[in-house]
Amino acid sequence: MSAPANFNGKIPTIDVADTAMLLIDHQSGLFQTVADMPMTTLRANVIALAKAATLTGMPVITTASVPQGPNGPLIPEIHALAPHAKYVARKGQINAWDNPDFVDAVKATGKGTLIVAGTITSVCMAFPSISAVHEGYRVFAVIDASGTYSKMAQEVTLARVVQAGVVPIDTAAVLSELQQTWHRDDAQQWADAYTQVFPPYRLLIESYLKAQDVATQHEILDSDRA
Amino acid sequence: MSAPANFNGKIPTIDVADTAMLLIDHQSGLFQTVADMPMTTLRANVIALAKAATLTGMPVITTASVPQGPNGPLIPEIHALAPHAKYVARKGQINAWDNPDFVDAVKATGKGTLIVAGTITSVCMAFPSISAVHEGYRVFAVIDASGTYSKMAQEVTLARVVQAGVVPIDTAAVLSELQQTWHRDDAQQWADAYTQVFPPYRLLIESYLKAQDVATQHEILDSDRA
Amino acid sequence: MSAPANFNGKIPTIDVADTAMLLIDHQSGLFQTVADMPMTTLRANVIALAKAATLTGMPVITTASVPQGPNGPLIPEIHALAPHAKYVARKGQINAWDNPDFVDAVKATGKGTLIVAGTITSVCMAFPSISAVHEGYRVFAVIDASGTYSKMAQEVTLARVVQAGVVPIDTAAVLSELQQTWHRDDAQQWADAYTQVFPPYRLLIESYLKAQDVATQHEILDSDRA
Amino acid sequence: MSAPANFNGKIPTIDVADTAMLLIDHQSGLFQTVADMPMTTLRANVIALAKAATLTGMPVITTASVPQGPNGPLIPEIHALAPHAKYVARKGQINAWDNPDFVDAVKATGKGTLIVAGTITSVCMAFPSISAVHEGYRVFAVIDASGTYSKMAQEVTLARVVQAGVVPIDTAAVLSELQQTWHRDDAQQWADAYTQVFPPYRLLIESYLKAQDVATQHEILDSDRA
Amino acid sequence: MSAPANFNGKIPTIDVADTAMLLIDHQSGLFQTVADMPMTTLRANVIALAKAATLTGMPVITTASVPQGPNGPLIPEIHALAPHAKYVARKGQINAWDNPDFVDAVKATGKGTLIVAGTITSVCMAFPSISAVHEGYRVFAVIDASGTYSKMAQEVTLARVVQAGVVPIDTAAVLSELQQTWHRDDAQQWADAYTQVFPPYRLLIESYLKAQDVATQHEILDSDRA
Amino acid sequence: MSAPANFNGKIPTIDVADTAMLLIDHQSGLFQTVADMPMTTLRANVIALAKAATLTGMPVITTASVPQGPNGPLIPEIHALAPHAKYVARKGQINAWDNPDFVDAVKATGKGTLIVAGTITSVCMAFPSISAVHEGYRVFAVIDASGTYSKMAQEVTLARVVQAGVVPIDTAAVLSELQQTWHRDDAQQWADAYTQVFPPYRLLIESYLKAQDVATQHEILDSDRA
Amino acid sequence: MSAPANFNGKIPTIDVADTAMLLIDHQSGLFQTVADMPMTTLRANVIALAKAATLTGMPVITTASVPQGPNGPLIPEIHALAPHAKYVARKGQINAWDNPDFVDAVKATGKGTLIVAGTITSVCMAFPSISAVHEGYRVFAVIDASGTYSKMAQEVTLARVVQAGVVPIDTAAVLSELQQTWHRDDAQQWADAYTQVFPPYRLLIESYLKAQDVATQHEILDSDRA
Amino acid sequence: MSAPANFNGKIPTIDVADTAMLLIDHQSGLFQTVADMPMTTLRANVIALAKAATLTGMPVITTASVPQGPNGPLIPEIHALAPHAKYVARKGQINAWDNPDFVDAVKATGKGTLIVAGTITSVCMAFPSISAVHEGYRVFAVIDASGTYSKMAQEVTLARVVQAGVVPIDTAAVLSELQQTWHRDDAQQWADAYTQVFPPYRLLIESYLKAQDVATQHEILDSDRA
Repeated sequence: MSAPANFNGKIPTIDVADTAMLLIDHQSGLFQTVADMPMTTLRANVIALAKAATLTGMPVITTASVPQGPNGPLIPEIHALAPHAKYVARKGQINAWDNPDFVDAVKATGKGTLIVAGTITSVCMAFPSISAVHEGYRVFAVIDASGTYSKMAQEVTLARVVQAGVVPIDTAAVLSELQQTWHRDDAQQWADAYTQVFPPYRLLIESYLKAQDVATQHEILDSDRA
Repeated sequence: MSAPANFNGKIPTIDVADTAMLLIDHQSGLFQTVADMPMTTLRANVIALAKAATLTGMPVITTASVPQGPNGPLIPEIHALAPHAKYVARKGQINAWDNPDFVDAVKATGKGTLIVAGTITSVCMAFPSISAVHEGYRVFAVIDASGTYSKMAQEVTLARVVQAGVVPIDTAAVLSELQQTWHRDDAQQWADAYTQVFPPYRLLIESYLKAQDVATQHEILDSDRA
Repeated sequence: MSAPANFNGKIPTIDVADTAMLLIDHQSGLFQTVADMPMTTLRANVIALAKAATLTGMPVITTASVPQGPNGPLIPEIHALAPHAKYVARKGQINAWDNPDFVDAVKATGKGTLIVAGTITSVCMAFPSISAVHEGYRVFAVIDASGTYSKMAQEVTLARVVQAGVVPIDTAAVLSELQQTWHRDDAQQWADAYTQVFPPYRLLIESYLKAQDVATQHEILDSDRA
Repeated sequence: MSAPANFNGKIPTIDVADTAMLLIDHQSGLFQTVADMPMTTLRANVIALAKAATLTGMPVITTASVPQGPNGPLIPEIHALAPHAKYVARKGQINAWDNPDFVDAVKATGKGTLIVAGTITSVCMAFPSISAVHEGYRVFAVIDASGTYSKMAQEVTLARVVQAGVVPIDTAAVLSELQQTWHRDDAQQWADAYTQVFPPYRLLIESYLKAQDVATQHEILDSDRA
Repeated sequence: MSAPANFNGKIPTIDVADTAMLLIDHQSGLFQTVADMPMTTLRANVIALAKAATLTGMPVITTASVPQGPNGPLIPEIHALAPHAKYVARKGQINAWDNPDFVDAVKATGKGTLIVAGTITSVCMAFPSISAVHEGYRVFAVIDASGTYSKMAQEVTLARVVQAGVVPIDTAAVLSELQQTWHRDDAQQWADAYTQVFPPYRLLIESYLKAQDVATQHEILDSDRA
Repeated sequence: MSAPANFNGKIPTIDVADTAMLLIDHQSGLFQTVADMPMTTLRANVIALAKAATLTGMPVITTASVPQGPNGPLIPEIHALAPHAKYVARKGQINAWDNPDFVDAVKATGKGTLIVAGTITSVCMAFPSISAVHEGYRVFAVIDASGTYSKMAQEVTLARVVQAGVVPIDTAAVLSELQQTWHRDDAQQWADAYTQVFPPYRLLIESYLKAQDVATQHEILDSDRA
Repeated sequence: MSAPANFNGKIPTIDVADTAMLLIDHQSGLFQTVADMPMTTLRANVIALAKAATLTGMPVITTASVPQGPNGPLIPEIHALAPHAKYVARKGQINAWDNPDFVDAVKATGKGTLIVAGTITSVCMAFPSISAVHEGYRVFAVIDASGTYSKMAQEVTLARVVQAGVVPIDTAAVLSELQQTWHRDDAQQWADAYTQVFPPYRLLIESYLKAQDVATQHEILDSDRA
Repeated sequence: MSAPANFNGKIPTIDVADTAMLLIDHQSGLFQTVADMPMTTLRANVIALAKAATLTGMPVITTASVPQGPNGPLIPEIHALAPHAKYVARKGQINAWDNPDFVDAVKATGKGTLIVAGTITSVCMAFPSISAVHEGYRVFAVIDASGTYSKMAQEVTLARVVQAGVVPIDTAAVLSELQQTWHRDDAQQWADAYTQVFPPYRLLIESYLKAQDVATQHEILDSDRA
């Protein structure tokens, strides 16, 4: 349909109160096949999503594709940073949505909006996203917290999920739509999350703090020392 | 229309039982003109499709554009791996769908869904796909098992076929939608097919088997040898 | 609308009998600003379009943006290869469609379908294409026979014109939809046109002819000479 | 919806008389995180927009995200080149549209069409654009006068805003739609603006003037000197 | 020294009769860290070297770095294609030349010239190469049959080994210096080896054979069929 | 001279016992100017060097260029991971070697070999390296733990320092020449250091441990569960 | 030796009177394997060399590697543009210098300096160049009029031939060292040759002539017309 | 020779007191042919050199290649920023060193060291540099203030001039070797010059000044406002 599906006149942005996050198949073996972005970037973006879900108290559901085989284990940071996440074991189904336990877990959250990321994008993110749209969910697919085997495969998948009514989104946009404002007590923790997504932000903070420190401490510049 | 055409409320994923595969003009000469991806990647992806079609018993139709001229012969792997494929000779028509024998062969499969790949993407994949959509088929165009003369031409063609109602897809997604689950007897053969599409998977398997072998055989690490 | 505009159920491919070609602002100065593809590729693709228009006898309209200034003169190949092309001088209007003489020339062709290419893509191709769609024409925009100042600008323009109902297309696809079949007397001239669009095709022909010549002349291989 | 939203049959181009420009969060710190284009290109494109707004007398509204922190101050060129711009301070809201003062300022212009650019694209440009479309504005999002943390994030955002009904546009197209014709007294100032967007244009002008000067002054070529 | 070391006036090309080949640490785990070229290219180039060594009967020595750990097993093609290769187990030494058994094996060949490839280039190829030069060997380092973690690391290593007197070489050059002439009985096997190094060569052969077959069999072109 | 300077017949590899490490101007502001590699890669490589220096007990000297100004503070990881490092403040000199305190600190180590990294490569690494060679030191310049403003600048600097007799090296090679063997008690810490330099190594370890765990714990594969 | 070999104090630039040109194995099949530059660029550069040789009357020797097989025929432009070139058939030798007829032809020119280009760079250019240096010739290797299977192979070959004493050069430098001055009667033909090597030069000429024509003809700008 | 030529034991860095700068053929037409770096980067680097020459009072000599023709005029910034520069008109010679007036101007400076930049690198920079080395000058060639028609041509030229004894250098290194220390009265003007070479430096300064201003003015953060 190529319009954001199932919004029915609602603005196509994330309604935090109505949303759950699905993190699918982010496994050490599958990460070795990722070629549409640096794997370190992918890992950092997934970490940022897990952090943001915890900061907002949003439900998180995780699952893995045969983690006992070459696909490897889930990266440990997800459950470390989102300890409230619920893990659902599958029985070999490639599309997580084909696993009834997984769908039940999603339904149990009572939410109508889903943030979905999965590796590989073309399969583990796309199938559940299209399935969820088909069952009436509003779905935000986080393309750069997914990761697949070629840039072309990523581009094709982007076109496919948009055509299917999924809303495409990047990690920074997810964070910002969840955070909403810097006028909040946990602002520093959000700033930390952004340093995962765009690492220059960490340099900015380091330089900023030093510059202010020099100003307030009246530190002399080395080039002005006798 | 920019929505998946002819699905009429069905979910826009591949229904294996209703699908035939069209592999068009994958010829040694035309492969020399491919520049949107490494030609070896294209060849491997086409091989993976042929394997997957055979594993599912799906009908396959092949054809070539004047293989007696500079375009060259079909790559032999297609018929080697999908020996049940039906070859249709054309009479100079560039759009395979303009050849009545080809359309008849498609109709004879009795399927309503088509997986289409062709070199060059812009022409040999796009024209039959758009024609088939126009005649009521549900069409999945495998962009990275096609191949064309520039990345820009690939991107333009992606936009065009999506606009026409074709569902864009990559090779790995085709494989996964056909396979559905790892809980099947031929799982190993599917794993082999994936090593064509993302070669690091082969390394994963090699490392995995060795790691388990070391563990079960109690092999000592070289670095621990006296 | 994001669907091919004004087709009203017709298949969104080029109907040769109903089509005119507009080649806009392909000028030596503007070519220096092109950065989304090699300028030589752009020039070759424009040449191929002009050739193809002549082979089919299709009306061609050209125009230039202040060719007396830094934008420079039209590249001479267009009128050399499509001597039947009609040149329309503008009076400073950036959007060729804002010039009444240009619109009159288009209307005078009596065609309802337009193939449009123009440098720079973002402006000289996009504006007339969107304008023509708005006035009821079926428009095919040849992205890689246009050319603009960055890859990003090209991608943005592609998205914009598709959203507006224009059909995006590449040069090779235009050629093939016009040619339709190799079973025609001027097949060799079409082959020549393709060597502009994908230069390896020229190598294929050279190798092919030599291989056949060796076979029929029973030429001995150098490596087999005594 | 994937069609240009809120045009209701109007052609989806910029109606100068009905348009205001929003330049959001172009700050020295945030510029350090931009990776989808060279930062210098982004800065030059923003400069070109500010110049063009002034040449047309179009209302401009600016704002910044916590400019007292690591995000840094607005780049000074915006207000230098568009001294009539109105600056709206926010109170920590990430989406400028969440700030009532900002929305009031937009409404006060009385315009129904908005040109929006913002850093980072994924957040500071996308959220206000989607919000404005939702409230009935016609929105043109200037992708290459925005800037975000990865090319992938830019591509995802482009797809998202197009899906939401925003019209994507590049800086050169904005300039041309505002300028309309070279037959105007301030033509030279527009030419200057283009040299920001495609710097080779400056070389074209330099070469052009010298070539004419040589011709009219009958200057002898160095290679012809005795 | 930056000159080919230890040649003493001999031409710095490979003297087949005086040469042994060292293939070091081409392991499935280490291959996952390779980023200066596609891993598939590296694997194919190593295969080509093994084939060529067998065709010339040249001694081959292989070794691996703790293959019982995450580095993984040697890729099996090396010993499959060069069954005469001698494997030397190390005891944790990173520089194979630090392992006395390895050096003894090299000395036992009686050769004064070494062809060396190893993963990762920066370490497993560079250290033994520099060590061997230091002990008086003439060393050819096959950069594109090695593979390391970044293009920059490869470039730095190239500069380092050249500075140390190693002769840098690519896989195709090794093959050609070993083969010397197409006027030999095993010419076809060499052609096969080249298809590993530049895959388009396989297409050339396929097209060539078909073109000659069409000529000699008087096969009619499809486009000429009634 | 283009040969490794000052080795006088010694093999041009790192002699751990004779070596000190100089880490120069790795500052948060200067890191924003780095464009020859991702800044995160640079930061990780510097971290790896600091770790390796500590593991070997090698002397480390650090310095910064006017850290009270826009260049910003040293990244904190260097002194955190190499707490024994000696910091030398300069007085505005760009070439650290122009600062007598810095040279004195180097001399005080009593070492004849130096490992040098510095941001920006072209200046902060190159000048001290060339100066040190001129005074008789054997110098290893770690190109990918430095970082400069363009790839071209990095390439030019590589050529320049090689010409001056500096040995170019990458971070992984430094680690390996310092570590020498996996047969040591702190092997795990070296493995950790390598995960900084090539992050896939971390995935390899994760997958390896899981694979062995599955084998020894006889864990059933999800795809084999009933 | 890494110095220009055999110059013995002469400046390492081309002495036109003492130089012959060798164009080796520029064949249609081998061109399909070229991946270090666009094949069209390679072809244009070879054309420029042939033209320049003719303009200076310099001896040219050509040869091909088994042109009766998949390597294909020599591109016809070489002999078309340098009709005085002498073709030497080989008998299967890969290194042209291994063919006595070829060496005899070189010696017959009586020149001591050679300009060498050959496809593939790594083999057909490198071997004869190194051989010729070994026999006392001064050799200029034209890297971008050769062409090989990867950028890495090109870089490795550059390092190798420089190490062997060959002078590396690009096509434009060859042209300029042969031309020496614009103060010559055939200046226009040299300008034409440069348009092969850097195609924007053709645009410059077109714009230049038009600008002067407008000035001298007092042509009014379209934007100034009533 | 591949060592820095003519230094005779002097350290191969720039001795300001002994140095003149040659800026050759930086013309608007030739700039259109530059493809090894963005033309804007080249222009900025040339500007930085001119500024630095003026700050140090170093002699500057400029020249142009037939500026009355398509090569176009010198960019005006050179003489604007280095008004003391001496312009030497040539008489068609391509190698500026072939023009006696040019050599005389160089000799008249009385300097033994030359900083050379020229467009195109392969010709206008390389020839005079090699010529000057041959006549005993110490030459520093500024690769990224030159500019040529391809990255490959730049790389080949780098190798060639290094082989000839020229010292390769980048623009930032030239600036730093001329400036020597930040402890000087004109430090701010040098900082301005660096913002030409690495534009993020300008952002650093803007952010730094604002951060200090906020600290000293006790400005409240927007996110902390009520």
